[in-house]
Amino acid sequence: MDPSSPVLPATILEQTALRLGCSPTDKKLAFRLDEEDELKHLRECFCIPKVKDLPPSISTMFTKNTMLAFEVLGVHGHFNGQRPWALADECILDLMAELVGAQRHEVALMNGLTVNLHLQMLSFFKPTPRRYKILLEARAFPSDHYAVESQLRLHGLDVEKCMLMMQPREGEETLRIEDILAVIEKEGDSIAVILFSGVQYYTGQLFDIPRITKAGQEKGCFVGFDLAHAVGNVELHLHDWGVDFACWCSYKYLNSGAGGLAGAYIHEKHSQSIKPVLIGWWGHEFKTRFLMENKLQLSEGINGFRLSNPPILLVCSLQASLEVFGQTTMKALRRKSILLTGYLEYLIKHYYNEDKTNPEKPFVKIITPSRIEERGCQLTLSFSLPIKSVFKELEKRGVACDMREPNALRIAPVPLYNSFRDVHRFIEILGSAITSSKQTANNTALSGSY
Amino acid sequence: MDPSSPVLPATILEQTALRLGCSPTDKKLAFRLDEEDELKHLRECFCIPKVKDLPPSISTMFTKNTMLAFEVLGVHGHFNGQRPWALADECILDLMAELVGAQRHEVALMNGLTVNLHLQMLSFFKPTPRRYKILLEARAFPSDHYAVESQLRLHGLDVEKCMLMMQPREGEETLRIEDILAVIEKEGDSIAVILFSGVQYYTGQLFDIPRITKAGQEKGCFVGFDLAHAVGNVELHLHDWGVDFACWCSYKYLNSGAGGLAGAYIHEKHSQSIKPVLIGWWGHEFKTRFLMENKLQLSEGINGFRLSNPPILLVCSLQASLEVFGQTTMKALRRKSILLTGYLEYLIKHYYNEDKTNPEKPFVKIITPSRIEERGCQLTLSFSLPIKSVFKELEKRGVACDMREPNALRIAPVPLYNSFRDVHRFIEILGSAITSSKQTANNTALSGSY
Ligand SMILES: Cc1ncc(COP(=O)(O)O)c(C=O)c1O
Ligand SMILES: Cc1ncc(COP(=O)(O)O)c(C=O)c1O
Repeated sequence: MDPSSPVLPATILEQTALRLGCSPTDKKLAFRLDEEDELKHLRECFCIPKVKDLPPSISTMFTKNTMLAFEVLGVHGHFNGQRPWALADECILDLMAELVGAQRHEVALMNGLTVNLHLQMLSFFKPTPRRYKILLEARAFPSDHYAVESQLRLHGLDVEKCMLMMQPREGEETLRIEDILAVIEKEGDSIAVILFSGVQYYTGQLFDIPRITKAGQEKGCFVGFDLAHAVGNVELHLHDWGVDFACWCSYKYLNSGAGGLAGAYIHEKHSQSIKPVLIGWWGHEFKTRFLMENKLQLSEGINGFRLSNPPILLVCSLQASLEVFGQTTMKALRRKSILLTGYLEYLIKHYYNEDKTNPEKPFVKIITPSRIEERGCQLTLSFSLPIKSVFKELEKRGVACDMREPNALRIAPVPLYNSFRDVHRFIEILGSAITSSKQTANNTALSGSY
Repeated sequence: MDPSSPVLPATILEQTALRLGCSPTDKKLAFRLDEEDELKHLRECFCIPKVKDLPPSISTMFTKNTMLAFEVLGVHGHFNGQRPWALADECILDLMAELVGAQRHEVALMNGLTVNLHLQMLSFFKPTPRRYKILLEARAFPSDHYAVESQLRLHGLDVEKCMLMMQPREGEETLRIEDILAVIEKEGDSIAVILFSGVQYYTGQLFDIPRITKAGQEKGCFVGFDLAHAVGNVELHLHDWGVDFACWCSYKYLNSGAGGLAGAYIHEKHSQSIKPVLIGWWGHEFKTRFLMENKLQLSEGINGFRLSNPPILLVCSLQASLEVFGQTTMKALRRKSILLTGYLEYLIKHYYNEDKTNPEKPFVKIITPSRIEERGCQLTLSFSLPIKSVFKELEKRGVACDMREPNALRIAPVPLYNSFRDVHRFIEILGSAITSSKQTANNTALSGSY
C-alpha cells in the first residue's frame, strides 16, 4: 500500500474477507494475506527465538531486538575475506544510505546514537544572541532531552528559556503538525536548531519530516532528526527533503543487536561549511591516515566527524541485517507494513473498542495516530486494565513485547519478518491475556474488600 | 621478574643456558624457558591464526589483533543467560578495573578511545587566562594529537602557543624523564592538562606514569594518560598513583577485536567536582533510567559520562578476553613479559649488533629503551636494510608483524599467548628474511648499475 493511496487498509481487509466468504476476524484472512505477501520469504533470514529462551530482562527492555539478526555468526566467516578492517564501516555505506535516502558520502557509521547526536549538535548548535533556542518534543527520548539540555549548558545558556518543548494539546497524546508549524512560525527567528524524532518512540507518531524541515529552514533554523524508530520502518528521503542532519541507531528495525553501530547523516550542502568540532584519526582522509604524520587532512562532511576506528563485530552484525534489507526496498516493506499494522488496528478496534454502555468490558485504546501518514509499524496501546498484569499474561503465553509505565504497550509488527498470522495470533493471545487479567483484577478487588 | 629486580634478563638467560650446558642462542634454552613458564597454559585460550589465512591488509595494520580472542563465538551462547543487556557493560567492570589498578566505580566501558578522550578533555580542559596549555608528546598517536588540537580550537585558543609538544633530544628517539619533569617544572603554571601515553605506540617507551602524575599535579595540572598500548601490557595502579583520568582501547593487548569497546577512568577524588559536559541516558542512574521521565539523575564519576547503551557484541568479546586475564595477574604476566622481551632483545643484540668494522653486515637497532622500567613487551626495531623488503620476507615466512614507515618494525611478544619458542623462531626467520633482503638489495644495486 502506498501511504498516499486513498484505499484504507480496513477496506482491503474487508474486501479480501468478502472474497473469501469469511469475517475479517477469521484467521483464514491472515492465511490468505500471508500467501499473497511478496516479502514472506524474508522471514527465513531470521532466527526468531521463543520467549522461553530469553531472560525476562531482555524481552522487557529490548523488544524489537528479540528478533536479533543471528546471521552475525555466519558473517564471521567473512572476517578474513573481502572486508579489510580499515574500511569496514565504509563497505556497508551504500546499503545504509539507501535506507535513509541519502547519498553515500552523506552517511557515516560510527558510535552510538547519543554520541553522534552530540557530535552533530556541537557543529550545528552555534547560538548567537538572537538565535539560541532548540525546539524539541516535550516527551523526547531521554537521551535526546539530556543531549539538548547539556548542549545548552555547554554554551552557558538558561535551559528554561532556551529549551522549547512542544506539548500535545490538553487531552491529546500526539502532536498536531499544524501546532508544530505554528510554533516554528512564531518562534523560528530565535530557534537555532529544531530536533524531532522521525517516529516517536513512545506514541509511534511519524512526524512530517519534509514539512518540518522546510518550515524550519524557511525561518533560518537547522533541522535535525533522531531516526532511531524511523529507519528501516518508514520511507526516508533525507537528501531530497533537504534535512540538515540526522542520526539513528541500528538495533531496532535494523536488527543489529543492542548497542549496534549507529548512523549519522549530514546533507552534502553543508560539506564545506559544517566542520566537526571534535576530531580524531578516523576523520582523517583514508589515503594518508596511516602515515601517522599528525598533519590533519580532514575528510569532507560527516566522514570527518568519525573519531575512532569502527568496531568490526558491529559492522558484521549490521551488514548481515542490511543485506536482508538489500533484498527488497523500503517501498515494498512499507507497503506491507501499512497493511500489516492496519490489520492489527482493525482487529484491536473490532474486539476492544470502548463500549460506554458496557463499562465492565475491558477496552484498548490506540495512542498512535490512526492516519497512515502519521505512523510507522508500531501501535502504542493503553488498557482499561492494569498494564502490568496484561503484560505478564502476554509473557506467560510467549509474547515478547514492550511495556512502558504507566499504561502503554508498544506492539510493532515488522514487515521484514512478521506475518499476518503473527498478528492474528497476537490478537488471540491478547484475548486470553485480557480475560485472565480481568479475572485477577476482580479477585484482587474481592480480596481487597475482605 | 620484578621490574625493580636487580637481576637483568640477560643474566637469567645466560645462567639458565649455563645450567643447560648450551649457548643462550640455542633453542634448547627456549624449550626450557617454556617448560618453566607458569603461564604457558593460557596460550590454549587463543586460536592463533596462520598468516596465510589472513588477508595482508589485516596483518599489516592490526598486528596484535591477529591474535583475536575467537572465544567470542563461544560466548554468544551466554547471550540469553546471566548478562542482562542493560547492565552488560557493568558486568565486566571488576575484571577491567583490576587490570588498570582502579576501583570499580572509577572505570566505565564505552565508545572508542578517541571518543572517550574527547569526553574527558571536555571536562578536564577548562582553560583560564593563566592556565591554558596542553602538554603532550610531539609524536603522540595522531588521534590524540588531533583531539588536543581540536579541544584547543573549541576554546578559540592558538594551537601554536597552547599545544606544548615534547621532542626527544637531538639524535635520540625517546623522551628522557628528566626532560619531561623539567618542562613540567618550567611551564607547569600555564599548563592545564598533561596528556601522555602510557606506552608510546611507536617507540614502545613506557613512561613513568606516577612521577609524571605527581610532578604535574604539584604544579596544579590535571594529568591524563592514553593507555592504548599499556593496558594488559604493564602493571598499572591508576588509583594509587592518583592519575586524574585515562582512556584505552581494548583491541591491542586486550584482544577484543578491531574497534572493540574502549575504557575510561576518572579518579574517585573527582567524583563530585568533575561532571560530564555532554550527557546521555546511559549516564542516568540505573535505578530510574528506564522510567523515561527526562529528569536527570546523573551517575557519579566516570559512569555519568556514558552516553549510549553498550554494544552487547563488543562486551562479549571483551569479556572473553578479560576472563583469560582473570586466570592470572598482571604481576605474573609482567614477570614473564620482562624475560620474554629480554630474550628477544638478547638474541637481536647477539645476531644483529652493528659492527663498525664490517659495514656489509646488516644490523638491527632497537629504538625502544633498554631499561626494563621504560618499556613493556614491545621492541621497535629499525634496520640497516630497506624495511619494506624485510617486512615482505617476514610475511612470506608466516610472520605477521607491524611495519611503520620510514624504518620501523614493531615486535611485541605477548606473555599471554607467546612462548619463548615463538621468539626463538622469530629470530630464525628474521635471519632468513634478512639474508634474502640483502640479496635482493644487492641484486637491485647490481641491476641499477647496468
Ligand atoms: C595510542 C593510541 N591512541 C589512540 C588510538 C585510537 O583509538 P580509537 O580508534 O579506538 O579511537 C590508538 C589506536 O590504535 C592508539 O594506538
Ligand atoms: C528515540 C531514541 N533516541 C535515542 C536513543 C539512544 O540510543 P543510544 O543508547 O544508542 O545512544 C534511543 C534508544 O533506545 C531511542 O529510542
